[in-house]
Amino acid sequence: MNRFIVSSISKGIRHYSTSKAVKYSQFGNAGQVLKVVQEEVNENLQPQEVLIEMIHAPINPVDFNLASGTYGFQPKLPSVAGSEGVGVVKKVGSKVQQLKANDLVVPVISSQVVGTWRTKGVFNEKQFHKVPSDIPAEYLASVSINPTTAYRLLEDFVKLQAGDVIIQNASSGMVGLSVIQMAKAKGVKTINVIRNGADHDEQVELLKGLGGDIVVTEDYIRTQAFQKLISDLPKPKLALNAVGGLSATELARILADNGTLVTYGGMSREPVIIPTSHLIFRNIQSKGFWLNNWYSSHTEAERQEMFDKIFTMIRSKSLKLYIEKHKFSDFESALIRSQEPGKGRKILLDLQL
Amino acid sequence: MNRFIVSSISKGIRHYSTSKAVKYSQFGNAGQVLKVVQEEVNENLQPQEVLIEMIHAPINPVDFNLASGTYGFQPKLPSVAGSEGVGVVKKVGSKVQQLKANDLVVPVISSQVVGTWRTKGVFNEKQFHKVPSDIPAEYLASVSINPTTAYRLLEDFVKLQAGDVIIQNASSGMVGLSVIQMAKAKGVKTINVIRNGADHDEQVELLKGLGGDIVVTEDYIRTQAFQKLISDLPKPKLALNAVGGLSATELARILADNGTLVTYGGMSREPVIIPTSHLIFRNIQSKGFWLNNWYSSHTEAERQEMFDKIFTMIRSKSLKLYIEKHKFSDFESALIRSQEPGKGRKILLDLQL
Repeated sequence: MNRFIVSSISKGIRHYSTSKAVKYSQFGNAGQVLKVVQEEVNENLQPQEVLIEMIHAPINPVDFNLASGTYGFQPKLPSVAGSEGVGVVKKVGSKVQQLKANDLVVPVISSQVVGTWRTKGVFNEKQFHKVPSDIPAEYLASVSINPTTAYRLLEDFVKLQAGDVIIQNASSGMVGLSVIQMAKAKGVKTINVIRNGADHDEQVELLKGLGGDIVVTEDYIRTQAFQKLISDLPKPKLALNAVGGLSATELARILADNGTLVTYGGMSREPVIIPTSHLIFRNIQSKGFWLNNWYSSHTEAERQEMFDKIFTMIRSKSLKLYIEKHKFSDFESALIRSQEPGKGRKILLDLQL
Repeated sequence: MNRFIVSSISKGIRHYSTSKAVKYSQFGNAGQVLKVVQEEVNENLQPQEVLIEMIHAPINPVDFNLASGTYGFQPKLPSVAGSEGVGVVKKVGSKVQQLKANDLVVPVISSQVVGTWRTKGVFNEKQFHKVPSDIPAEYLASVSINPTTAYRLLEDFVKLQAGDVIIQNASSGMVGLSVIQMAKAKGVKTINVIRNGADHDEQVELLKGLGGDIVVTEDYIRTQAFQKLISDLPKPKLALNAVGGLSATELARILADNGTLVTYGGMSREPVIIPTSHLIFRNIQSKGFWLNNWYSSHTEAERQEMFDKIFTMIRSKSLKLYIEKHKFSDFESALIRSQEPGKGRKILLDLQL
C-alpha cells in the first residue's frame, strides 16, 4: 500500500474527487437511517479496481430490508445503500481484464452489496459486469434483480410448456409484471392475483395489456365465481408467492396436484401456511427462491446466458419495464413514493441530476 | 356370471360361510360409525379371487381418518374397516398366479382399502402380496404402513450418510420408533421430539434404548438449553413431521440450510407454518409423503425390495415393533385403547379370538 502511494505520487497522478451517496451507519427504518452524504473518492486505483460513475439506480424492497437489518445477511456498517443500477466505467486499474473505460456495467448481486445510490465509486472489477449499450439505461438499471428473479422462477422449479398455467400474487410488482410477459412468451397462461385497492381497474388494464390471462383480487380468489372462472383452464403447476399468509395458502389450494409453491418475498410479514392435507394427499411442495443464492452458485457463463435472453426480450419489446424516474436531489421524496402500494412502477433515481 | 353359477352348481361346489367384520355405512366418529357385523362370504371364487382368513390387524390412525371421511380419498360405503394386517390364503381361483393356499399375505396399500378387520374375506389376488413365514405374524400384520413409511422417509428425500443428523416429532409412534432404528442402522443420528406428558421417563428410556441419540419434549426444543445440547452435532438435513403447527415450525427452524421438512401426518390438525425467511434465505423445502402415492407409483419389484430390506432388519433384530394384542371380541375396548396418547405400542386385533 505504501509502495503504491509513493509510486502514485512519483507519477503525479494522485486524484481525489467527491461523490454524493446515500449511507447508513445503523440499522433501522430507511426514512430515518438513510443519510445523503458527500464522500471522498480515491481515484488512484488499485490494479483490480475500476472507477464507475453511476447513471441510474432503482429503489427496491430489498434496500429497505438491508437498511433495517432484516435481510438474509447484514451488510457491514457504514454502508452505501442501493443493490442494483447501471453505471459507466470511467477508469480501470492496471490489471483489470474484463472491463474498459466507457463500458456500461451493472452490479453482480451478492452479499457484498455494491451500494448503487451514489454518483460514483471505486469497486473491484468482479463486482460489476458489462451490459450492452443498445438497451435503454433505465432498463439496464432495473434488470439485475426483478426480471432476473422472474426468469429464474419460471426456469428453475417446474418444467413449463406452452398451454401450462401458473398463478402468482404480488402480480403488479416488477417481478410479477416480468413473469406475465416471460410466461406469455412461452405460451404459458397466468392467473394474476393483485391486492384489493383503489387503483383496481388501472392495474387490471396494465396486467391484461401485458398478456395476463386472468387478473383477480386477493378477495376474489376465495369465491365460487373464481373457481368457475378458472374451471376451463388446466390447474396451475407453479405458484409464485411474494406475500405469504393467507394469500400463499390460497395459491397452494389452487395448485394442481404435485404442484410447487415458490416463495420469493413476504410482503405481508406473515409465514407461509400450508394445510397438511395439501402436502400429503396432493403432494404440494413449498420452496423458496433467493436471487443472491442463485448468483453465488452459478457461473459467469450461466449468468451471461440469462442476461442475453432477457436483453433479447427487451429488444423485441416482449419485455417492458415500468419505471418512474426521480432526480437524486429529490431522494427523500423518491424514497417515500417507492413505498406507496400498488404504484405499478419501479422508482428509479437519476443519479446525475 | 350366470354361466359361472350354473357351472358351480353343476359341480356341486357352492360354498357360503360367515365372517365377522367391522363395517361402516356412513362417515363419522369411529366409535359411533364402526359396527361389528356378521357377513356372508361367497367361497365360490371367481378365477382371479382368493379366500383369505385374517390373522392379525392393527388399528392405525388412518383407519379413523377413513371412517370419518377425512382421508385423502373416501372409500365406497358400506366399507369394511382396517387398512393392513396379515392373513393366510385358504383357497385360490382358477387363474390366480402369484398366491397359493397357506401363503401368508399382507394387503397392497391402495385406495381400494381391503378392510382387514374381519375374520375372512374374498379378494382379488392383486390386493395382497405374499410375505415370508419366518417373521412373527404380529410383525407381518404391522409392517405395511408404519415401517414402510419410515423406510421411505429415510430413502426418498435426502441422501443420508453415516454421521448425518435428522430430527423428527411424534417420535414415539410406530413410524417414529422405526425411523430411530433404521437411522441407527445407517449410522444416522436422530433428534427425537416427544410430546410433553406423564409417561416422559418411560418414553425417553424406550427411544434411547432403540438408539435414539437425543430425546426431548416439544417444550424443550424451544429452549436455549436445547440449542446447547445439539451444538456439537451437525445440523439436521431432514426433518420428519407428523404433528404440524408450532411443532413443524420448530423442526424447520432447527434444520440446516438447504434442509428438507417432510410431512407425513398432522396429529395437531394444524397446518404446516414456515417463516418466509427460512424458505428464502435458508432454502428450506417443505414436502409431503403419502404412502398410498408411493405404492401406486412404484413397481412390484420396488415394493418387494423394500419389504425384503425391512424383513432383513426384523430377522437381525435391528428393527423391533412394539405391539399390544387385543381379542377381536374385545374390539370396542381395543378401539378406545388405540386412541390413548403416548402409549408407545401399536394396538393389534387378534382376529381369530
